[in-house]
Amino acid sequence: MTIKRIAVITAGGDCQGLNAVVRAVTKHALKNGMEVFGFKNGFDGLVRNEYMPLDDCAVSGILTRGGTILGTSNIANPFDYTLAPLGTPQEPRNVSNLVMENVKKNRIDALIAVGGDGTLSMASRFLDMGLPIVGVPKTIDNDLSATDFTFGFDSALAVATDAVDRIHTTAESHHRVMIIETMGRYAGWIALRSCLAGGGDICLIPEIPYSDEAIAKAIISRREKGKNFSIIVAAEGAVNERGEMSVQKTIAGSTDPIRLGGISGRIAAMLEEKVGLECRVVVLGHLQRGGTPTAFDRWLSTRFGAEAVELILKGETGNMVALRGGDIISVPIKDAVAKLKRVDPNGQEVRSALAVGTSFGSSRIG
Amino acid sequence: MTIKRIAVITAGGDCQGLNAVVRAVTKHALKNGMEVFGFKNGFDGLVRNEYMPLDDCAVSGILTRGGTILGTSNIANPFDYTLAPLGTPQEPRNVSNLVMENVKKNRIDALIAVGGDGTLSMASRFLDMGLPIVGVPKTIDNDLSATDFTFGFDSALAVATDAVDRIHTTAESHHRVMIIETMGRYAGWIALRSCLAGGGDICLIPEIPYSDEAIAKAIISRREKGKNFSIIVAAEGAVNERGEMSVQKTIAGSTDPIRLGGISGRIAAMLEEKVGLECRVVVLGHLQRGGTPTAFDRWLSTRFGAEAVELILKGETGNMVALRGGDIISVPIKDAVAKLKRVDPNGQEVRSALAVGTSFGSSRIG
Amino acid sequence: MTIKRIAVITAGGDCQGLNAVVRAVTKHALKNGMEVFGFKNGFDGLVRNEYMPLDDCAVSGILTRGGTILGTSNIANPFDYTLAPLGTPQEPRNVSNLVMENVKKNRIDALIAVGGDGTLSMASRFLDMGLPIVGVPKTIDNDLSATDFTFGFDSALAVATDAVDRIHTTAESHHRVMIIETMGRYAGWIALRSCLAGGGDICLIPEIPYSDEAIAKAIISRREKGKNFSIIVAAEGAVNERGEMSVQKTIAGSTDPIRLGGISGRIAAMLEEKVGLECRVVVLGHLQRGGTPTAFDRWLSTRFGAEAVELILKGETGNMVALRGGDIISVPIKDAVAKLKRVDPNGQEVRSALAVGTSFGSSRIG
Amino acid sequence: MTIKRIAVITAGGDCQGLNAVVRAVTKHALKNGMEVFGFKNGFDGLVRNEYMPLDDCAVSGILTRGGTILGTSNIANPFDYTLAPLGTPQEPRNVSNLVMENVKKNRIDALIAVGGDGTLSMASRFLDMGLPIVGVPKTIDNDLSATDFTFGFDSALAVATDAVDRIHTTAESHHRVMIIETMGRYAGWIALRSCLAGGGDICLIPEIPYSDEAIAKAIISRREKGKNFSIIVAAEGAVNERGEMSVQKTIAGSTDPIRLGGISGRIAAMLEEKVGLECRVVVLGHLQRGGTPTAFDRWLSTRFGAEAVELILKGETGNMVALRGGDIISVPIKDAVAKLKRVDPNGQEVRSALAVGTSFGSSRIG
Repeated sequence: MTIKRIAVITAGGDCQGLNAVVRAVTKHALKNGMEVFGFKNGFDGLVRNEYMPLDDCAVSGILTRGGTILGTSNIANPFDYTLAPLGTPQEPRNVSNLVMENVKKNRIDALIAVGGDGTLSMASRFLDMGLPIVGVPKTIDNDLSATDFTFGFDSALAVATDAVDRIHTTAESHHRVMIIETMGRYAGWIALRSCLAGGGDICLIPEIPYSDEAIAKAIISRREKGKNFSIIVAAEGAVNERGEMSVQKTIAGSTDPIRLGGISGRIAAMLEEKVGLECRVVVLGHLQRGGTPTAFDRWLSTRFGAEAVELILKGETGNMVALRGGDIISVPIKDAVAKLKRVDPNGQEVRSALAVGTSFGSSRIG
Repeated sequence: MTIKRIAVITAGGDCQGLNAVVRAVTKHALKNGMEVFGFKNGFDGLVRNEYMPLDDCAVSGILTRGGTILGTSNIANPFDYTLAPLGTPQEPRNVSNLVMENVKKNRIDALIAVGGDGTLSMASRFLDMGLPIVGVPKTIDNDLSATDFTFGFDSALAVATDAVDRIHTTAESHHRVMIIETMGRYAGWIALRSCLAGGGDICLIPEIPYSDEAIAKAIISRREKGKNFSIIVAAEGAVNERGEMSVQKTIAGSTDPIRLGGISGRIAAMLEEKVGLECRVVVLGHLQRGGTPTAFDRWLSTRFGAEAVELILKGETGNMVALRGGDIISVPIKDAVAKLKRVDPNGQEVRSALAVGTSFGSSRIG
Repeated sequence: MTIKRIAVITAGGDCQGLNAVVRAVTKHALKNGMEVFGFKNGFDGLVRNEYMPLDDCAVSGILTRGGTILGTSNIANPFDYTLAPLGTPQEPRNVSNLVMENVKKNRIDALIAVGGDGTLSMASRFLDMGLPIVGVPKTIDNDLSATDFTFGFDSALAVATDAVDRIHTTAESHHRVMIIETMGRYAGWIALRSCLAGGGDICLIPEIPYSDEAIAKAIISRREKGKNFSIIVAAEGAVNERGEMSVQKTIAGSTDPIRLGGISGRIAAMLEEKVGLECRVVVLGHLQRGGTPTAFDRWLSTRFGAEAVELILKGETGNMVALRGGDIISVPIKDAVAKLKRVDPNGQEVRSALAVGTSFGSSRIG
Repeated sequence: MTIKRIAVITAGGDCQGLNAVVRAVTKHALKNGMEVFGFKNGFDGLVRNEYMPLDDCAVSGILTRGGTILGTSNIANPFDYTLAPLGTPQEPRNVSNLVMENVKKNRIDALIAVGGDGTLSMASRFLDMGLPIVGVPKTIDNDLSATDFTFGFDSALAVATDAVDRIHTTAESHHRVMIIETMGRYAGWIALRSCLAGGGDICLIPEIPYSDEAIAKAIISRREKGKNFSIIVAAEGAVNERGEMSVQKTIAGSTDPIRLGGISGRIAAMLEEKVGLECRVVVLGHLQRGGTPTAFDRWLSTRFGAEAVELILKGETGNMVALRGGDIISVPIKDAVAKLKRVDPNGQEVRSALAVGTSFGSSRIG
C-alpha cells in the first residue's frame, strides 16, 4: 500500500522534545510525498475530528520549543471517554469507533502516536481494531525497558541537577537540610541521576524503601563529621518501609495541605521533629517538563521522529521506535509497554551512588 | 588612623553575589596592606569570636559560587540574642558588648557588614556604640531606595524568568492556568519584572491588592479571546483587597514554602472552584537565592566590595555603598535603611506592564 | 493630531531584545487603537516600501527570541543608498525622498526607529525633513551617555562571562594563557565587565592603550607568584600605545572575525614569541549578539518599546527613550547621538578592576 | 594482592567531567581503605614524581568544575619524552623506566589512567611492562567504538548547540550564511548532532567529503525557496572530495592567517566568491571543552570513576570502563584503543539528518 496521508498525535503529560518529534515526522513525511495531519490534544482530536495540516511552515522554529504545538491531554481515553468538563460527573463511554471513523473519513493511512504507557496501551487496542500505528515512546521518567533513553528525561535531569546545584550553596551557607523533590512516581531515575550529578547526600526513590530512622541517622552521622548541612533528593513516589507513598493530593481535591502529604514535606516535618534541624523544601514539579529541550533530547526526538516515518515507509506498523546504543531500533508496541525499567536496588548504579557517599535512607542498603 | 585590620560578615538570607563581595573586599584590602578577618555566620561569629583569616587563597575560585563561605544566619541579633538551639525556649539577652569586646580583642579597625534591613539596623546601633562600620546592602528583593540595584536580584530574576519560560510551554500545551510563586514579601519587583520578561498574563504583587473576581475575570476574558491558558506570576507577599496576605506556615512553626494556604495555592483553589479550570502551581522558593550569580550580579558585587574598602580607606565609615547610574556612591547607613523602594501602583513600570497586556488582578488598576 | 498609524523599523547590527521592543510597541499601539506597520530590514524597507502589518498574532512568542522578525540591515542608508548587490560597484545616491513618499503613501503618522548611532543620525535628518520619529537606542556596546543601559548589552555580557568561565578551567588545567576577544570597537564595556565578572587577569580595552611589554610583564609576574596560567579579555578595538588597532580584515574585504591580525591573534603571537608561553585564542564574535535575551534585556526592551509609544501619544516625537535609575526618560535624539559613553581610564570602575587584581596591560595604569 | 595505594592521572586535552572522575575514584577508593595519589599533568607527573595526595577535602566541590585539579598535558609521552621548554629543540628520549621507578618508590599498587587514544596507547605499553592499569576513556569527540558515550561529549554538544541557536537568529535577521566550526578532527559527531539538535542546514564532517559546488548549490536552492539565510555546521576536520583537510595552523607556527586555513574560513571565502553571499564565521574552539559539565556528563564521569575502582578491587586491571546501555562494562584496553567510531555516511543517523532537510555538501549523499 502506498502511504499518502499520515496523522500524528501527542498525548499524556507534556515534556521537552515533543515538538522536535512532530517536526521530524512532518519533514520526513513531506519529503516522501505524504500529507501530514496533526490531531489536537492526543486522542481527543481523533474523537472530535480536530486537526491541523502540518507543513514546513507549521513546524518552522519549533525544534527548540518545549510543549507541543498539537496540544495534549492527560485524560482523553477513547475507550473510556467523557466529554464532560472537569467536575461535572458524566458516565464515560467507549467512543473508539469515532476515532476509527475519523481516520477513515480523513483517509489517514497510518498514525504516529507519541505518548507514554497509557497512550501506547490505547494504541495497542487500536492496532487490534486495524489502525496502522507506529509508536514513539514518551516518558519523562525514562522507565521503559525497551529503550536506553526516552526524550524529555535528559532535560528533566538537567533541571533537577541545576536545582541541586543552586540549593547546595544555600544549604552550606545556612547549615540546613534542604530537600529537593523530583518527578518519579514509580521509577527513581531522575532523583538518582540528579543526586549523582549534583552530589546529593541522601536519595529517596520508589525502588528503595526508606525509614525515618535511617534518614535521621545519615544526617546525624554527617553532622558528626563536621558537615552541618545535607541535601536530600527525593522522588515524589518514594515509599517508606511499610510501603506507604506520600504523594500529595492535587489542589482540586483538597487544597489545604497542598504539600503536607508530599514526600518532601513529610521528611522535612519528620527531621525537624526528630533531629531538631532547620529544613527547607523545594518541589520542582512542572519546571522539569517545560522549556527548551537539551541538545540530547532534541537529537533523540529528531531521530525518533524520522525513524517513525521510516517504519511506516517499510510497512512496519505495530512497532515502536527505541534507542539501543547509537541506533534506533523497532520493537513491538505490545511488548514495549509491558515492562517497566526501574532502578535495581542491588544494581551497579546504586552501588556507584553508595561509592561516592550517597545514602538511600534505608536500613537495608548502604 | 591607619587601618590595619578589617573584618567582614555576611548576614541574613543568602543570595548570589555574597562571595563576590567577600572576594573583592579581601583582595582590595590585602592590596592596601590590611589584614582581613571573616567572622562566621553574620553577627553570630562576632558574638562567639569565630572567624577565619581571609587571604588570596581563601577567596580563590569563589567569584562564581553562590552562598557565602563565611556562612550566614537569619536570626543572630546581638541585641536580642539567644544561644539556645531551635525549639528550646530561652530568654534572649543583649550581648552587643561581646561583639565590642571581640572587635577590640582582635584589634579590628573597621567592619564591613553585608546584609539587609535587619543587619544594617544592627550595624547602625553598633555605629552608635563606636564601631566603625561600612555597609554593603543585600536584599534579593531590590527594595532599597538608596540604590538602583542590589546584588542577587538579577540572579533571582533570571531564575524566575526561566521558570516562567518553562511553565509557558506546558500551560499552552495543556490549556491550563499555571501559577508561579516568586519571592517578594513586601515588594513585588521579582514578580513584576519576571512577568514582564516572561510575558506573564497576570501579576500579583504586595503593592496592588488583588480581588478574586478580577483575577477570574481576566482569565475568562482571555479564554473568550481564544487563549485557553494563562500564566500568573504571584509574589509570595501579594495581598487581597482586604489586606490579607497568604504567606504559608512552615512545618514546624516557622515560615518556609511548605505551604498551608500560600498565595499560589490559594489562587489555584479559588480558580478551580470559581472558573472550573485546571490549575498547577510552582513555588520557586530557595531556587531563587542559590547557585552561580549572573554576570551583572558578579559585576555589581565586585564593585560594591571594592568600594566598601575604599570608604574605609577614605575614613567614610558610617556609610553604605549604593549604585547610582554606573557609579558606586555612598549614603549614610541610617538614611539608607529607612526607606523601602516599592512598586508604584500608578507608576511607569506598572503602566508598561498594562501596555503589553499584563493585568494585576485588581478591580482598580488596568 | 490623532495618531492612527505608526511604523517601526529595526536597523543596524542585530542584538538580543529587538523583538521584545517590536512586541511592546505593537501591543501598546494596538491597545491605543493604532495600526502598526513593520518595515523590513531597517530603512531599506522604507525605501522599497516593503512592510508587514503587525498584530497580536505577529508578535506572539517573539519576546524570548533573538534577532528581529522585521529583518535588519547594516548598510541601508537612504541618504547614501545603493541597490546594488554586494560586490557590484554602483554610485550611491540620496533616496530619502522615497522614504518620505512611502511614509505619506501609507499614511504613517509616526515612526519608531530602533537602532544605533548611524540609525539615529539618519533619524535625525528625517526629523528635519518633517517625519515625526521616536528613537529607541540600540548599541550592544552600551556606549551611549544618555542611558544607564542599552538592551542587548546584558545578554552580550552574559555570553562573554560564560566564555570566561569556560576558558578558565582549561587555562588552569593546561597552564596556558587564554585570550578571549569580545566586541567593543570604541568602548570596552563588554570586555571590562566580563573580565570583572569572570575574574580575568588582564583586560585590554580601546580606552587604555596597551603595551606588549606591560602585558608580558603582567603574565611573568603572575608566573612568579606560582600562577602559571592567565586569562586575557580583549575588546576587538583595543589599541596599543602607538594608537594602532588590530581589527582584522574579512575574507572578502569587509570586517568579520575571520581574522588577519585581530587583537587576540596579535597578542597570542607576541606572547608566544616574547614569553615562550602556549597561548590559545577564542573570538566570540556573533555569539554575543544572538539567542534568547536575558531577563534584564527583555525587561528593558519591553519598557523601551512601551514608552516609545507613550512618547508618540504625548506628542513628544524627536525624542529617544533612555533608562535613568529605574525610570524611562526621554532625551532629544540629536543630543543623544552626540555623546559616546566610554570607560574612564581614571574612573571608579577601572579602579575597582585594579582593586581585584586585574591589570590593563598598560605602562601607565595599575 | 591487597590494593593499598592507587594513583590517578588525567592526560591529553581537558574536557568536562575529568574532575568528576577524579572525585569518584577518590571517594570510592578511600571508602575501601586505599590511599589515593593524584599525579600531576598526566604522565609528566609520573616522570617527575610530582603528585598530590587525594582525600575527601581535596575533591570537595570539584564535581561541577570543568578542567582537572590534577592538571594535564597534551605532550608528555614517557616513551618519547623531552623536558625542554616549548621552542627549545631537544632530543626526545624514553624515560618510561622513570615512571616505573616512581610507581615502585611510592608503592603504587595500581594506576587509573584517564585519557584518550594517545594516553591509553601509552597505558597499554606500561601494562606490558607490568604496571597494573585501569583505563577511563576520554574523548570529547565520542569516537570510541567500545562505549556508547564518552564524557565531555554531551557538554561539548550542548555548547555547540547553544551556538547554533544563537547564530540562527542573527542569520535570519541579517539574511546571511553563518558558519559554525566545531571540534572533530577525525569524527563528525559534535558537528552532526549539534546540527540535528539546532536545525542546521548544511553539515560538513570528516566522514563525508564535501564539494564546493554542492555546498553552493544547497544554499542557492534554499534561496530559491525563499530562505535567504543558511546555517552551516562544520567539523574542523571536514575534508573535500580530494581528501584535503583545512585545519588551521597554530599561532606559533604561522600566526597570520590564524583562521585562513581553517575549514570555516575556507568555506566562507569560497561562498562569498562563488555565490556572492555575505558570510560570517564562528570558531567555537576551546569553548567546547571547558566549564561546568552537563548533568549527563557528571553522571557518566561518576559512574566511570566508581567502576574503575571496582575493576581494581576485582583484580581486572588491563581493562577500560565503557558504557553499554545503562551499564558500565569493562573491555581490554588494547582492543578499545584499536577501533575508532566514525559517522557512517550511509548509516541511519545521516539518513535522519537528510530526512529533516540537512544536506552534507556532497555530490554523492543526499
